[in-house]
Amino acid sequence: MTGTVGGAGADPAAVAVADPGADLRHRVTSTTVTLRGADGAPLAGREVTVEQRSHALGMGNIGFDLIPLANGETTAHTAGVETFGGASLDGLEHLAELWLEVFNTATLPFYWGAFEPRRGEPDTERLRRAAQWFADRGVALKGHPLVWHTATAPWLTDLGVDEIERVQRERIRREVSGFAGLVDTWDAINEAVIMPVFDKEDNGITRLCRARGRIATVRMAFEEARAANPAATLLLNDFDMSTAYECLLEGVLEAGVGVDVLGLQSHMHQGYWGEERTLAVLDRFARYGLPIHLTESTLLSGDLMPAHVEDLNDWQVEHWPSTPAGEERQAEEIVRHYRTLASHPSVEAVTYWGLTDDGAWLGAPAGLVRADGTPKPAYEALRDLVKGAWWLPPTTTRTDDEGRVTVRGWTGDYRLTTAAGAADVRLGGPARSGRTGEPVDVSVSGSAAG
Amino acid sequence: MTGTVGGAGADPAAVAVADPGADLRHRVTSTTVTLRGADGAPLAGREVTVEQRSHALGMGNIGFDLIPLANGETTAHTAGVETFGGASLDGLEHLAELWLEVFNTATLPFYWGAFEPRRGEPDTERLRRAAQWFADRGVALKGHPLVWHTATAPWLTDLGVDEIERVQRERIRREVSGFAGLVDTWDAINEAVIMPVFDKEDNGITRLCRARGRIATVRMAFEEARAANPAATLLLNDFDMSTAYECLLEGVLEAGVGVDVLGLQSHMHQGYWGEERTLAVLDRFARYGLPIHLTESTLLSGDLMPAHVEDLNDWQVEHWPSTPAGEERQAEEIVRHYRTLASHPSVEAVTYWGLTDDGAWLGAPAGLVRADGTPKPAYEALRDLVKGAWWLPPTTTRTDDEGRVTVRGWTGDYRLTTAAGAADVRLGGPARSGRTGEPVDVSVSGSAAG
Repeated sequence: MTGTVGGAGADPAAVAVADPGADLRHRVTSTTVTLRGADGAPLAGREVTVEQRSHALGMGNIGFDLIPLANGETTAHTAGVETFGGASLDGLEHLAELWLEVFNTATLPFYWGAFEPRRGEPDTERLRRAAQWFADRGVALKGHPLVWHTATAPWLTDLGVDEIERVQRERIRREVSGFAGLVDTWDAINEAVIMPVFDKEDNGITRLCRARGRIATVRMAFEEARAANPAATLLLNDFDMSTAYECLLEGVLEAGVGVDVLGLQSHMHQGYWGEERTLAVLDRFARYGLPIHLTESTLLSGDLMPAHVEDLNDWQVEHWPSTPAGEERQAEEIVRHYRTLASHPSVEAVTYWGLTDDGAWLGAPAGLVRADGTPKPAYEALRDLVKGAWWLPPTTTRTDDEGRVTVRGWTGDYRLTTAAGAADVRLGGPARSGRTGEPVDVSVSGSAAG
Repeated sequence: MTGTVGGAGADPAAVAVADPGADLRHRVTSTTVTLRGADGAPLAGREVTVEQRSHALGMGNIGFDLIPLANGETTAHTAGVETFGGASLDGLEHLAELWLEVFNTATLPFYWGAFEPRRGEPDTERLRRAAQWFADRGVALKGHPLVWHTATAPWLTDLGVDEIERVQRERIRREVSGFAGLVDTWDAINEAVIMPVFDKEDNGITRLCRARGRIATVRMAFEEARAANPAATLLLNDFDMSTAYECLLEGVLEAGVGVDVLGLQSHMHQGYWGEERTLAVLDRFARYGLPIHLTESTLLSGDLMPAHVEDLNDWQVEHWPSTPAGEERQAEEIVRHYRTLASHPSVEAVTYWGLTDDGAWLGAPAGLVRADGTPKPAYEALRDLVKGAWWLPPTTTRTDDEGRVTVRGWTGDYRLTTAAGAADVRLGGPARSGRTGEPVDVSVSGSAAG
């Protein structure tokens, strides 16, 4: 895709992304940037190249597969418990390139069972190196989850409820404070709707939640995480899109719990929701006034899971291939899905759940890359969307007499480069307050970060 | 069924209902009653007849059909809106006899749309006469419902949300204070889980609940009803038995709303739940420590509604007959259902939804009496249960030397009659605190109420 260069005249010179259409225009900001030299004087009439560096809209994926790469591991790491996906070690560098080409936010696995399979032996350093690896590459991080009944520490069942609560609180503080500055966004609690009545397996967190109640458990998660990192962005996350989640949320908000963001899962193993249902879900949950993250989105490139399956974990198949027809469908649906989500003003992030079919959750062909490492059409379609149609490529123009250039593009991070140096700026505020940005006044520097 | 007379000896003379079995023993109290004459002296060695008059366990049914009888109406009353059942005028006296033979609690219809079809013209006097008719016959009353989105006043949609809230608050105060002393139990709010997202028809209450939120709407209902009648028993009532209702309830309790009783509907048009599911539902909701009323129980004596129907109101059939096989099934299931409910210590009342098929909701064969007025097997089975196996019929014994007799029977109201007069006593406290009752000391009176 191409940016365009505006004509000369009374207005500042302008570069602009292609108009995304009326339903997405709230994602686009038009901001005038004044460029100054090191001496503070406007860089008037200079050639300047404007290029987008990142989207304000969170474009997430799980970073699970790349933990071994970040840690330089040469043998498979296994915790002996559910880890929800993980590719084999071959080809991880290629996978990393594909990952970094499209995504700007990584979800890291803090499942208590795999993170601390034996009490007192948390996997902290390995996760820290993984987080640092992403951060070094400009990727924002999210930790998932601090409280959940599934994949939790198996040794909790040896403890009484009071002791479970104590160690759960300690665990939240340990992770959130220990990773502060690196991981500042957390799923504070996952799937609290079903938590106290979950009956697939006995576990300490269901016992705790049943004894204390959902709201008390949610409050515990947010209280501890907030105390450990007051600046953290904390999510309430659930797969339950029914009125049950609305009711829980209303109770949680009524109780004064400080939810920053509402997390909606959308594992679509049983088929793409379609625009109408997706928008209806978003509208129902947007009415609480919280930003929304689609935390776990999945679309298959093979057979769908039958509609009668209630718990996705119950569907076990030996071989679940990606098919040519499935891949075409997935590519079409992923564009429709991301367009629909971006069209809703409450959505601030979308996380796709898995890059590769290799080691994917449930063995499903949910990846954007085949198990052999080749990109599926959905990968290319998503890349063409977020790095193409929704992206301002390097575009050269000339500043006006006052050193100004107007940039019209998707809210996010931009770099403006002149012969005198470059400046990195964030254009537009939060996604929901896009459109006309506050003017930016910035001095270029010869050593703008790469 | 027969009561038994204990032998003479050191212990007081005793009469006892048949042992109902271990799972129902918490329903039975054993209480020693000392009978005294008008002069206060014990009536020693006197012949006394003990008879049960009513169950502490609420045995409810709707009283809708009998409103015309109580009002002496000779032409059909129609509000032009949904009234959820109503038999034709012929044969109401016979229906009343059948009603009074089995039930001790009547639910009266306060659907706002039928109660006040034109603003400012409430149907107060007609409902008051109906309530008085039941009260005169020893029947407790419940009003249903004070707040509901279905069958609500159609003129609310002409008002803004603030005005809807104002008139809804006024309507609650008007009914609850106006009927205090006659109707002291109310479904304060009905179906709040779906209320703000109900999309079958535009209505003022959904608008209000969507604007204010569920918890604020529930609080409004309870606040106003409590202010109007501090002694009232106020229910939160819903058909939604999923985790959504749990979540709502947890939020409501967390918000400090004074819920006295949790109402669970159980319209089983799609088939009897069975013991296991019923007990699982009761256990899930009993963990909040509130008494439970089964507010709307239905079992069909004909074809079942298909399982795929989500909103029972969507199932419209021309002719829905009661069948011999269906009637046998209904009779068997109603005994299993009431036994199961009585076995759970949290259940304090069970209301069956409709006595007759004539004018039954949805045209379903849900009644215990056929449209022609003849009792179905289920009527007889329920009567034999609550007035037979669970009932102490008139049983004669002799008081001991201190004027005492021990009565072992279902918690409820009893009359003890001697030649010197009779005494009415309530034996046992709330259903959940049955077993051994506090001793009762009472003087007989020649004019005990009939």
